[in-house]
Amino acid sequence: MRQHHYLFPTLRKAPSDAEAVSHQLLLRAGLVRPLAAGIYTYLPLGLRVLKKVSSIIQDEMEQIGFSELLMPAMQPAELWKTSGRYEVYGPELIRFHDRHAREFALGPTHEEVITSLIGENIASYRDLPLKLFQIQTKFRDEQRPRFGLLRGREFMMKDAYSFEGSWAQLDRTYLEVYEAYLRIFERCGLHVLAVEADAGAIGGEGETHEFIAPAAIGEDTVAICSQCGFASNLEVMQPSRENQTDDSPSCPHCSGNLQLSRGIELGHVFKLGTKYSSSLNASCLGPDGKWQPVIMGCYGIGVSRILSAVIEQHHDAEGIVWPSSLAPFQVHLIPVSMQDSQQMNAAETLYRQLCDAGIETLLDDREERPGVKFKDSDLIGIPVRIVIGKQAGEGFVEWKDRDRNIAVSTSLESAFVQAVERFASRR
Amino acid sequence: MRQHHYLFPTLRKAPSDAEAVSHQLLLRAGLVRPLAAGIYTYLPLGLRVLKKVSSIIQDEMEQIGFSELLMPAMQPAELWKTSGRYEVYGPELIRFHDRHAREFALGPTHEEVITSLIGENIASYRDLPLKLFQIQTKFRDEQRPRFGLLRGREFMMKDAYSFEGSWAQLDRTYLEVYEAYLRIFERCGLHVLAVEADAGAIGGEGETHEFIAPAAIGEDTVAICSQCGFASNLEVMQPSRENQTDDSPSCPHCSGNLQLSRGIELGHVFKLGTKYSSSLNASCLGPDGKWQPVIMGCYGIGVSRILSAVIEQHHDAEGIVWPSSLAPFQVHLIPVSMQDSQQMNAAETLYRQLCDAGIETLLDDREERPGVKFKDSDLIGIPVRIVIGKQAGEGFVEWKDRDRNIAVSTSLESAFVQAVERFASRR
Repeated sequence: MRQHHYLFPTLRKAPSDAEAVSHQLLLRAGLVRPLAAGIYTYLPLGLRVLKKVSSIIQDEMEQIGFSELLMPAMQPAELWKTSGRYEVYGPELIRFHDRHAREFALGPTHEEVITSLIGENIASYRDLPLKLFQIQTKFRDEQRPRFGLLRGREFMMKDAYSFEGSWAQLDRTYLEVYEAYLRIFERCGLHVLAVEADAGAIGGEGETHEFIAPAAIGEDTVAICSQCGFASNLEVMQPSRENQTDDSPSCPHCSGNLQLSRGIELGHVFKLGTKYSSSLNASCLGPDGKWQPVIMGCYGIGVSRILSAVIEQHHDAEGIVWPSSLAPFQVHLIPVSMQDSQQMNAAETLYRQLCDAGIETLLDDREERPGVKFKDSDLIGIPVRIVIGKQAGEGFVEWKDRDRNIAVSTSLESAFVQAVERFASRR
Repeated sequence: MRQHHYLFPTLRKAPSDAEAVSHQLLLRAGLVRPLAAGIYTYLPLGLRVLKKVSSIIQDEMEQIGFSELLMPAMQPAELWKTSGRYEVYGPELIRFHDRHAREFALGPTHEEVITSLIGENIASYRDLPLKLFQIQTKFRDEQRPRFGLLRGREFMMKDAYSFEGSWAQLDRTYLEVYEAYLRIFERCGLHVLAVEADAGAIGGEGETHEFIAPAAIGEDTVAICSQCGFASNLEVMQPSRENQTDDSPSCPHCSGNLQLSRGIELGHVFKLGTKYSSSLNASCLGPDGKWQPVIMGCYGIGVSRILSAVIEQHHDAEGIVWPSSLAPFQVHLIPVSMQDSQQMNAAETLYRQLCDAGIETLLDDREERPGVKFKDSDLIGIPVRIVIGKQAGEGFVEWKDRDRNIAVSTSLESAFVQAVERFASRR
């Protein structure tokens, strides 16, 4: 991609209302722009990262037998009234009337829609399990949107649902999703803790876990036992949130010391049981020939929120340091002077070679001072920077990894070979 | 993909309110299910097709220098008031208040959002052209949603916008998009006419063309001159829609006879000029050092609507006949009897080979009668069907192209080689 006619407006300073580092860097690196409180446009660079996160999630969900579908954002209010959540959800649920005065809600989650869909389309326990997911824009009218993509009103979520013929089957699927989530976060370069959790507004009868990325700005507090490894969201152990940092609870399993840590909730898995299938009448014929409500699990990941968490965990004083699995481009190619024909020829040749080899390359073809180009490059955090400067005539360029402070002089040929070795096999 | 635990509920008969063939087949083949009038869930099979359409569009838009971004669905009403469209749009614009009583609209299109975004982020004509597109869910509260995905209230659209420093630059981009659109529709297997059009609610000062797929259920009427090739939407030539089929207008260029044909509008390109950049204050410094409003073009494609148009043009009495570029799978593998171990071994081996070769294969592993399997197979329209029946023991299977009526006996090895030759290079 050529940078000159590509839209990612970088900023030297973040707006004063951006407190969190990730929020500041999302804005400064030109990944997103706000349209209203908690509502963001993903600029091309930000959308590239969002798509990489999505495709890691899709891949891992498909590996464990989930298939993707896409449900509507507009949901008839009747469904929510049937499940009993229309009142419970409160002002976070965005409601409106269509031109015929029928009530609708904008989906913050899709248990109602998918349960009624499955109820209409299965007959026997032999058709189960059915495992489905979607990656979709969700709406939640937060009282106080904040921290950029962390607590937004319109955001991207992966929601998955499984429909099971027995609790034993649900246990198996739940474990598979649990393990897939650990792989997803690892592939995103995230350090994440799986902890016991509270079911909250989703409800359900069984186990539930959260996946929490430790970060200072996190809105959740995790308690971890240093002796036996037990980990839990603090609100499970001590429902009153007010004084949760005052006392120091001990481990319920071994009475060991619990360490408290702030974190960002990135995923949540629930054994729902029959909460939704009972109220929305999703039943199947069981092995005994009797109709039974199907047993459900649901499994969410905050897709856009992952961008914030990754930046919280991967940045330095100069900007973002993307893990290469999520980096919007792999190589940043910077000719120092656009007026120098030797530099430009070398840059164009290398750019073409890298693109042809399938390596995502950003070419800084702007008429800017070198200092501006380097500062922007550090800010947006592409893993490898190749600078083409005065040595271009002799066939030499400078290679610098974003996460190291050393620039190494290398031949053009060797820069190409190194980039291929490093990135071409990852695709 | 194994069919048994995959959700696409086929129907022998379409619901009585589905008039159009494409609407009937979308429902019968289990591609979509309605949630409310004009609001659909894309089931896994339908979503696979939708994604193929999207990726053809992405590819062609990127080839001509457009980069993808993603704008919000929730748009502050102020923006629409500033452009003057808040009143003009009428009841098709879905409006609501957030919890703080601020007015919002659900985006039916994004001229306002992107124009104000660009206005905040460009300074000089040297930064132009800027070319951006998105593929996104749009909302339009149609008075009478109908024909399945053809006239929906929540639908998928590709909208693209270009910001230019001069009219000459806009002319170039417009032509590039025009030609890319012809390639997109051709790759989708669609016969499409590019015709002169009316700007309608989008407005603008310059040229505009529509891309219309001839189909009996189409809501547009196209006039084509058999002598000079002139083609136009009839409403341009004759704004009063009421009696458009009564008279027979003659060609404005050569006075030749005009033939009238019904069609589905799939794309629309506009030279907007400065309509939005003037009202929303998107200006840049021109070559003369003076601020000037940027010159804009906008370019839409109805992504979900393409599914309907393709089915209208590609079906027979038994079901859909997908062009292989859009087919949800390339090969449908059908073992006749799940009880026959020779058949099942052959089917599993071939399934594994095809998947390993990167060929999208659907394995019908359901305990159903052969007749049911074949009927479903014709209905969903996968290009190649390989039936594994009684000859499996001798290493023979039956190969049938969906668009031909002849089944050919062939060896297992040869079936694999043929499938690879036909599909592996297309990916």
